[in-house]
This record gives sequence, structure tokens and C-alpha cells, in this order.
Amino acid sequence: MSAKIRLYVDHPLGAGQSIPLEKDQAHYLFGVMRQRLGGTVALFNGVDGEWQAEVTEAGKRGGTLTCREQSKPLQMPPDLWLIFAPIKKARTDFIVEKAAEMGAARILPVGTEYTNSERIRQDRLQAHAVEAAEQCGGTYVPEVSDLQKLSQMLDHWPAERQLMFCDEAEVGQRLFLDVAQGNALGGGTGADRSAGELVDPLSSQPWAILIGPEGGFSDKERKRLHAMEQAHVVSLGPRILRADTAAVAAMTLWQQTLGDW
Amino acid sequence: MSAKIRLYVDHPLGAGQSIPLEKDQAHYLFGVMRQRLGGTVALFNGVDGEWQAEVTEAGKRGGTLTCREQSKPLQMPPDLWLIFAPIKKARTDFIVEKAAEMGAARILPVGTEYTNSERIRQDRLQAHAVEAAEQCGGTYVPEVSDLQKLSQMLDHWPAERQLMFCDEAEVGQRLFLDVAQGNALGGGTGADRSAGELVDPLSSQPWAILIGPEGGFSDKERKRLHAMEQAHVVSLGPRILRADTAAVAAMTLWQQTLGDW
Repeated sequence: MSAKIRLYVDHPLGAGQSIPLEKDQAHYLFGVMRQRLGGTVALFNGVDGEWQAEVTEAGKRGGTLTCREQSKPLQMPPDLWLIFAPIKKARTDFIVEKAAEMGAARILPVGTEYTNSERIRQDRLQAHAVEAAEQCGGTYVPEVSDLQKLSQMLDHWPAERQLMFCDEAEVGQRLFLDVAQGNALGGGTGADRSAGELVDPLSSQPWAILIGPEGGFSDKERKRLHAMEQAHVVSLGPRILRADTAAVAAMTLWQQTLGDW
Repeated sequence: MSAKIRLYVDHPLGAGQSIPLEKDQAHYLFGVMRQRLGGTVALFNGVDGEWQAEVTEAGKRGGTLTCREQSKPLQMPPDLWLIFAPIKKARTDFIVEKAAEMGAARILPVGTEYTNSERIRQDRLQAHAVEAAEQCGGTYVPEVSDLQKLSQMLDHWPAERQLMFCDEAEVGQRLFLDVAQGNALGGGTGADRSAGELVDPLSSQPWAILIGPEGGFSDKERKRLHAMEQAHVVSLGPRILRADTAAVAAMTLWQQTLGDW
């Protein structure tokens, strides 16, 4: 048996485990998707992989699913953060959806000097990440963090985490491929180090991708980023990309070169 | 002088050339963007590059712009087609916008066996491509074709145009990088030919990217595509991508490897 419906549940999964359904889950499964007793649903919780579960109770206000067999183990994405400055609602939603699809491990919205001080609805963005995981067949759901200031994030930047930094002002500069292959590493990185030192190990290190805000980085931010030892400045081609496009393009380059593609 | 406002006009551009404004353009420039006599606007028409133009007449129902100097030559994108099966309205709009930003030369919606026979509004999609070009600083606007059947398009496939074919059924199969570098070319292409024959020249040939429909290709379509001499089957990683995500990811791989990035 292999279910067409995939559902994220906040509940432990394992052989014989019963999962009580909340009212809206019951409405979705039995009302919208017309599932009946004995029907099969794929479940994942971000921890225990994917399980095929059988509908063992169905009601208007609730129901129960019972886990039968594991259909996928937990597949962790690479240790990649996606950091971005929130923009208009639809495009922010889109970036979170795409980050989950493309296999980011964590999604971090940041405020920059030129970002409008918009609030974000962390719970709504997290729900988008869950929905994207349900759709793309993932067994892991990236955590969406609360909004924080970029400057504060950089104050506490983890020493070992490499940073792929997409600078609009560097349009046409250099390809990520060169960075990843260890060619000419000195050119775009903040620190002086020999290329040989970094060949290969880059792929085994934790990474983050930082997408510039729509208004660009301030000079102060740009200087600080360029000076970081972990920073790798990359180009995303000769045309200016919107932030949401840049997010997908940067993750593609990273996944292809250093990730799990 | 360098204008912040970029406008696409369907009119020849050149030194001293006067461009009469239509009512809605006048409303946008003078009503919404508060431009006045003597203000500067960047113009492009997809043919003559980008020109800085001065507002030489401004009225409620019209006005005139006069070209002063060329600020960018025409930058043609590589000869890349993006072929996709229309999906929900918002995501179809998104694919067209992204194709223009990412530098596709032509955008071709196709109906496949598993596509709902939705119509498209070619004029609306073309307007999206224009708007994306205005935003991304491009001087070229890709043409959005009318909807046609995939099978008919393949009946008349140009012999020299290579096809990057993203097959959901091939998730995890092979990287485009391998294709582009001419490694193991025999594996994923329809025809038998030696790898050496195709190394390098690939980048000088016209290309197309075909994004699979949400419902996947039919067996018949898949067989036909795999048998094409020009087809290169590529993987977009271990997670299933939505069609709009796949479009951006595939164009990223192509632009980085064979295009103008």
C-alpha cells in the first residue's frame, strides 16, 4: 500500500502507533479528501521518517490513524541555512516554500538596514514550510526562526559555518563553481588563505546562504560581510534577480556543487 | 543622468527620437510616479538597447519623452527556450516572470497528455514578461508563444536544438554538469554517439529546457522524449520540485554551465 495523501503530524510515529486526529485534520481527510475506514495516509513528523497509516476511526470531529509500516527513513537535508530579508507577503511565503522544497535545514528571516521593519508571522511561515514538505515528499521540515537583526546574527556567527553571500553589487563577478572547486578562492573571500587549504572540506562544513534584501545591503553591512572569514561572494548572472528568484538560484548552485543533488 | 524608472515602449529608440505616451503610460509616469517636465526615464523596446529619455511634454492624457543617450546596448540572452505546461494561474505567471529574469529567449507553454486543457491568456503572460524585464534591468523581452500541443511541437523539433529534459521519474539520476562536461553522454541521451563528439560545441548550440507537468509525462510522451537525439535527461535532486521551482532550478543549472552567468 502506498498513500497518495501525505500529512504532517506532531506526534510520534512507529509500528502500531495510534495517532488521534484533530478536528481540522479529520475534516480534511474525511470531508475534503473523502477517506474512509481502511484508507491509507502517509504520515511524517520530521523525526521518524514516513509511515503508511490506516484510518481506524473516522468521525466528523476526529478520528484515529494507525501506523502500519515505514515507507521512508528520515532523510535529513544537508546542514544549509537560508537567510533572507522578508519582502512582500506573497514573495516571502514563496521563499519559505522554495527553501523547504530545495532542502534547506533551517530558514532564518533577518532585518537589514534597508529592510522595511515589517513583522513576520512565524507561525504562518512555519505552516508554509510544512505544506511544502507534504507536497515535495520530504520527511524533514525546516524550522523557520523568528525575525532577528542581521547585525546581531553576525555578532554570534558560528566560526565553522561557511557563508555564501549573494551581493547584487557583484553582478557578473564570479561563479560559485569556482568557489566550490577551490579555484581562486582568495579572490572573493574575506580572509587570506591558500586555495589548497579549502578544496573538498568545504562540502563537509555547515553552510548558510544569505540573499540580499530588495533595497540592497548598506555599505556598512557589505563591508562587514566581505570581511568575514567564512564569506564566499558569488554572482548570480548578469541580470538583477528578484530576491525570491535569487533564493532558488543560489540554493540550486549550492545543492548541485556541495549538497545532495 | 540615470533614471530609476524603467519603461518598456513599443516604439523605435535613438538619439533625439520622440516617443508619444499613451494614456495609461502618462497616468503611471505623471500620476503614480510623480514625474515632471525635465525628469528622466529609462526606456527599452527589446531591440535598441536602453535609452535615457527626458520628459518633454506632460499631460493628464498623454505626453512625450525624448531620447537623450543610450545607457545600455541590447543584450541578447543565450538562445534558450523554456517550455512548460501551464499550471495554476499564480504559478504560471511566476514561471513566465522567472523565465524573463533568468534570461530565456523564448517562453513556450505546451499542453501535454496529463495537462488540464486550460487556456492561457497569451497577452497577460506577455505583459508579465515585459514587467519582469522592466524590473530586472534587461533590455530584451522574451516572446511568450501561444499554447501548443507538446506532440505537435516535437513533430517539428529543430534538428540542431538540444533539449534539457527534467523527468520527475528520474529523480536522483544524474547531474546536468556531467551532461555539459560531456562525461558519460551516452547514458542519458537518446542517441548513440561518442562523448568526444559533443564536448564543448554544446554551449554554442541552441537549447530548450522542458519542465514536466504537475501530473508528470505520460508513458508515450516519456518514451518519445527519451528517444530524441537532442534530449539530455537531467536530475534536479532527491526531492520532488514543483514545476515553478523546477523551472528556476533548471535554468540556473543551464545558465551556469552553458549560458551567460
